[in-house]
Amino acid sequence: VECLDLVLIGFGNVGRRFARLLAETSSRLERDCDLTWRIVGIATGRHGAVLDPAGIDVGQALRRTENGQRLDTLRHGGPPGDESGPALTPGLDLIRRLDALGGRSRHQVIVETTILDVRHGQPATDHVREALRTGRHVVTANKGPVAFAYAELRDLARSVGREFLFEGAVMDGVPVFNLVRETLPAAEVVGFRGIINSTTNHILTAMEEGREFDAALAEMQRAGIAEADASLDVDGWDAAAKAAALANVLMAGGVTPADVDRTGIARVTGADVRAAVAAGQRLRLIASARREEGRVRASVAPRLIPGTDLLAGLRGMQNGLVLETDVLGEVAIVQLGSGLAQTAYALLSDLVTVRRGL
Amino acid sequence: VECLDLVLIGFGNVGRRFARLLAETSSRLERDCDLTWRIVGIATGRHGAVLDPAGIDVGQALRRTENGQRLDTLRHGGPPGDESGPALTPGLDLIRRLDALGGRSRHQVIVETTILDVRHGQPATDHVREALRTGRHVVTANKGPVAFAYAELRDLARSVGREFLFEGAVMDGVPVFNLVRETLPAAEVVGFRGIINSTTNHILTAMEEGREFDAALAEMQRAGIAEADASLDVDGWDAAAKAAALANVLMAGGVTPADVDRTGIARVTGADVRAAVAAGQRLRLIASARREEGRVRASVAPRLIPGTDLLAGLRGMQNGLVLETDVLGEVAIVQLGSGLAQTAYALLSDLVTVRRGL
Repeated sequence: VECLDLVLIGFGNVGRRFARLLAETSSRLERDCDLTWRIVGIATGRHGAVLDPAGIDVGQALRRTENGQRLDTLRHGGPPGDESGPALTPGLDLIRRLDALGGRSRHQVIVETTILDVRHGQPATDHVREALRTGRHVVTANKGPVAFAYAELRDLARSVGREFLFEGAVMDGVPVFNLVRETLPAAEVVGFRGIINSTTNHILTAMEEGREFDAALAEMQRAGIAEADASLDVDGWDAAAKAAALANVLMAGGVTPADVDRTGIARVTGADVRAAVAAGQRLRLIASARREEGRVRASVAPRLIPGTDLLAGLRGMQNGLVLETDVLGEVAIVQLGSGLAQTAYALLSDLVTVRRGL
Repeated sequence: VECLDLVLIGFGNVGRRFARLLAETSSRLERDCDLTWRIVGIATGRHGAVLDPAGIDVGQALRRTENGQRLDTLRHGGPPGDESGPALTPGLDLIRRLDALGGRSRHQVIVETTILDVRHGQPATDHVREALRTGRHVVTANKGPVAFAYAELRDLARSVGREFLFEGAVMDGVPVFNLVRETLPAAEVVGFRGIINSTTNHILTAMEEGREFDAALAEMQRAGIAEADASLDVDGWDAAAKAAALANVLMAGGVTPADVDRTGIARVTGADVRAAVAAGQRLRLIASARREEGRVRASVAPRLIPGTDLLAGLRGMQNGLVLETDVLGEVAIVQLGSGLAQTAYALLSDLVTVRRGL
């Protein structure tokens, strides 16, 4: 049995749900996947950080964070604030302190779940780069690194012989990247189209039923699904980042979110979506990509699709992706349930991939 | 680069399409999958058989078979009809002759695509058993072995350290078994429901548009999709065999097709399906399974499902499977295109899995 030492960079909703899922599935991971784990570091945005090469008590870390207490005093490998030089972000700080603690003979995995600036892909991209540079495996639910710097980070990971995995970046735990890598060998993805942003799909389908744009958006914000900055969903930034990630990984697209031809749903009205339904169509925010004249062109835009299209049937927070392949035709993968548990599972499945590759 | 020696048992539409796909993707397989191949044996039902350890000219074998000529004289390792003892089926015969030809230092893969008796799982199950028993890997598009004898054949394969793979048994080349094995680690499949027979789905959706049962069935027979014996599709035997295969592999079901609670669509009328549509529902032949009181109960039956269900949107020859998992909720995989090319691709993807495992 191989024991992985995990360092959690980010300990918000996703990070904490991941820690709980690890604890819940421990015996299954050991029995089926030959994998045990310890958490040796946690860096949070507002609750400090802790490092302990002997392993951190996960239950205590969860309770402290949820009670608004700091983690620094939980027990750690060095006093807080002992850094000299320019200020570091907590995540980079923790990754850089890891070396001083020893334990490098063990397999270390950085689990990156910080809040992402989707317009710049930071600080996640810096975290991933630093972790790989110093020889750690990386699993992340962040779409930023793969949307903004995929080729660089993939090559860096190869050069140090470490994994860089990001299944949770698109459609949570439903396999997309792993699907293509593991189950579609020798097939070329020549294009894709999908619904990959839950908030906008909820708004569009709620308006079909006569509800108001703002009320539907507010529901998603209350549920913690929509980004606090509504523009990230409504103006298509989140979908554009995911489209860039898909284009980069599945089609060697070499694009960033800024290269994605992007139109949001801010100007879509209830009358628009209901007129589509009346005409046997549906209005959906479709992310797509296609190779044109040697380049990959990706776009995100509200589009009229036939009511018989698989994507037309996806309602509320359901997501779906249709992959066009050369040798297998069209294959679609659909996420019918969505939430924190699914994102946490994506990290878990990536962790198992790290284990398999050892 | 690892060279696999392939023995094709069955050289009908699927086997020949597979041979063509191999030739078409040769350079990609070598570049991306580190895999080269030779075909060293072909056993057909009506065109004789050929063995040649030095490799058979695939183009010639295809042309001969399609011109109604026999393969025996193509060049082979021994004269035809030199067997003593009881008569053997051509497939078993060929597998048993392999040993006399030497070349066992190489990796041999039996590619099983014979016509299946779906009520007994033969002769495919005997072919698979003999191939594994004598130390060959097996890839097959037949549902029989996995529907009737999964646990035995899996254990046999493990005991000899060989692969037994069957991605094409359900939903052609769209990953179902590989999806769960490779991309859903530590997730338990607690049930499934799906549309997994193309002929009956075509008939039901054609009747929604006012066409007749018999005319729709005849279309599928002309296209080579429906079984020649219409009962295998219409009475749910094909779907039951696939449901048993799914239940056995994904849920350790330990069932055979005869254990599947089976109702076909023979009594479904056009009035029935159109009444369903008028009520906002759809009538579909649904294969499903669920664990009840420790046992896996599988069924195939025409069922009324809501028009908003993902499966309701699948028309014509489209197939789809919704997997219910404990840690990831519902995940669906959908096949939008279907045909010989997809089944051939299933065999190809299994071949790559054999290569990865070497």
